[in-house]
Amino acid sequence: MSESTTLSIEALDARVRSILGRAGLNPVQAGALARVIVAGERDACKSHGIYRIEGALRTVKAGKVNPLAQPRLVPDQAAAIVRVDAQHGFANAAFELGLPALVERARRTGLAALVINDCTHFSALWPEVEAVTEHGLAALVMCPSYATVAPTGGIRPLLGTNPMAFGWPRAGQPPYVFDFATSVAARGEIELHRRAGKQLPEGWAIDVDGAPTTDPEAALAGAMLPFGGHKGSAISTMIELLAGIMIGDLTSPEVLDVLGSTTLAPVHGELILAFSPQAFAAGRSGDPFARAEGLFEAIVGQGARLPSQRRFAARAVSASQGITLTEAEVAQLDRLEALGLDAIT
Amino acid sequence: MSESTTLSIEALDARVRSILGRAGLNPVQAGALARVIVAGERDACKSHGIYRIEGALRTVKAGKVNPLAQPRLVPDQAAAIVRVDAQHGFANAAFELGLPALVERARRTGLAALVINDCTHFSALWPEVEAVTEHGLAALVMCPSYATVAPTGGIRPLLGTNPMAFGWPRAGQPPYVFDFATSVAARGEIELHRRAGKQLPEGWAIDVDGAPTTDPEAALAGAMLPFGGHKGSAISTMIELLAGIMIGDLTSPEVLDVLGSTTLAPVHGELILAFSPQAFAAGRSGDPFARAEGLFEAIVGQGARLPSQRRFAARAVSASQGITLTEAEVAQLDRLEALGLDAIT
Repeated sequence: MSESTTLSIEALDARVRSILGRAGLNPVQAGALARVIVAGERDACKSHGIYRIEGALRTVKAGKVNPLAQPRLVPDQAAAIVRVDAQHGFANAAFELGLPALVERARRTGLAALVINDCTHFSALWPEVEAVTEHGLAALVMCPSYATVAPTGGIRPLLGTNPMAFGWPRAGQPPYVFDFATSVAARGEIELHRRAGKQLPEGWAIDVDGAPTTDPEAALAGAMLPFGGHKGSAISTMIELLAGIMIGDLTSPEVLDVLGSTTLAPVHGELILAFSPQAFAAGRSGDPFARAEGLFEAIVGQGARLPSQRRFAARAVSASQGITLTEAEVAQLDRLEALGLDAIT
Repeated sequence: MSESTTLSIEALDARVRSILGRAGLNPVQAGALARVIVAGERDACKSHGIYRIEGALRTVKAGKVNPLAQPRLVPDQAAAIVRVDAQHGFANAAFELGLPALVERARRTGLAALVINDCTHFSALWPEVEAVTEHGLAALVMCPSYATVAPTGGIRPLLGTNPMAFGWPRAGQPPYVFDFATSVAARGEIELHRRAGKQLPEGWAIDVDGAPTTDPEAALAGAMLPFGGHKGSAISTMIELLAGIMIGDLTSPEVLDVLGSTTLAPVHGELILAFSPQAFAAGRSGDPFARAEGLFEAIVGQGARLPSQRRFAARAVSASQGITLTEAEVAQLDRLEALGLDAIT
């Protein structure tokens, strides 16, 4: 006999907004956070679902994010750059404020960037990538994290897990989207191995002396490794440069200095590039969206998969059947709603 | 006793221009090609040096590139996009024409793209990345290739080796630059293993049935693999979308259809993004160029290397001591100069 509870997407959204409001977030912050948390649950992406509420509240309680922040658009400094000052709130609210301006700009100039400064990262980048593609634009998004990854050939944490995400719009169906860490594995996966008493696969991490290790404890004390060897290390360095230094925001080592912990959501900036395929393809033969479908068909036709398909399948199920939470998950929501920030120890 | 010949950079440049002119290239095409060929030799990057002349001329002789092309700037369609029609000549001449416009645009708008259409790719992307950084801009460059790489989980060639290159300007020294194929290895490396009768490392390729192989013959008949598993495969797909389809130019499978061979230089388009760190950092604290030096010091300080340092060391030697060619290399240049396209069998 199941004790699970099924809620509509809208009902879960209202529930999460209420919890976040009770914990002191203003409606702008609570609304934006609730949307990505519910998107995670909706897509059966549990690691970015309601599980994340506690982390967000822990960061609020630690005073490292402003729950009352009202992000603001910074007056234009350059024609292809839209900048939002997150006012030390969560990135999600700042993104929502900047998105219409980014879309308008990219349509007009063909290519535009949204820079988010002084924000606290929360959740994945795919909700933002998908939001851009809904306007018929392609998106490339990146941000630093905190220093937990050694550059290839190095021995100490310096780079972040620095995620990179990309999206391409598709008519009548979810976009082509990838979103991944530029480290071999996420830090959370190493933590899960530690708790389970399991060895890590080879190639994930090095110990404090820079020697390869499969011991999770040694890995957490040492450093993670970039994906794809020196190539992934170079991409991760590019992300520090473009989405940290270039936009006048923190690098991953600086984030760690500021926070003093990898258990709080990182404070930094974010870079979102939006491309107008219509503008880029202007005057050339062929419709870019139709041609892209041909490429996707060729990928799927040989048995390879497009990224994010598992999420999209779960999304379709959630849309028709709602989102099902376990008894423990509902109890956790009840507890958070009753106690607010006092639930965070 | 060495029979080698040492030439100044200028003398080798004149020699290569003369050879290309003798083979029918106009001064615009010959000049641009000579510059990248000499840059390859200067940087001891032999795989992109005079060795490449024959490949360029083979493509000319096959009628797949126009040696008399005069690239032209296409009238503006969008504020952040500069477009050059290569007129079916080499990409290098089109890039040289578009660079000043790209630089002016990126300085003005903060972020701009140079699209090159209908060009034949020749040599590496790092000469272009470095040329952008000389103007104080960061650069991200990508282009498709021909279908030789299977998407992760697939069994047949579909993606190209799709290179991606990035550069960040550094005062008083060569830029931070990486330039790599998004396949595990370059196709030429597999060919070299075949000629040497050596097995390939594991993870480079699959055979015609999609099974992993270390046999170079089986790999050449099958497909290469992307670097970094599904992440590299996704990046390579992004390059097909942005630098092929979006800019209204060929994808890697289309290139192969057009050329019918992987021994000719690929015909396609190219996407060059230029970022103005000054514009992106405006109004924020800290000088982005100075902060980037701190990041580079932290990388080098823990024993890791910055990419391209071997090339830059060779460059310094070439600047003071000239470029040394073997007797066979000089004989090859003599033969090409004497015979022109008749040297190509």
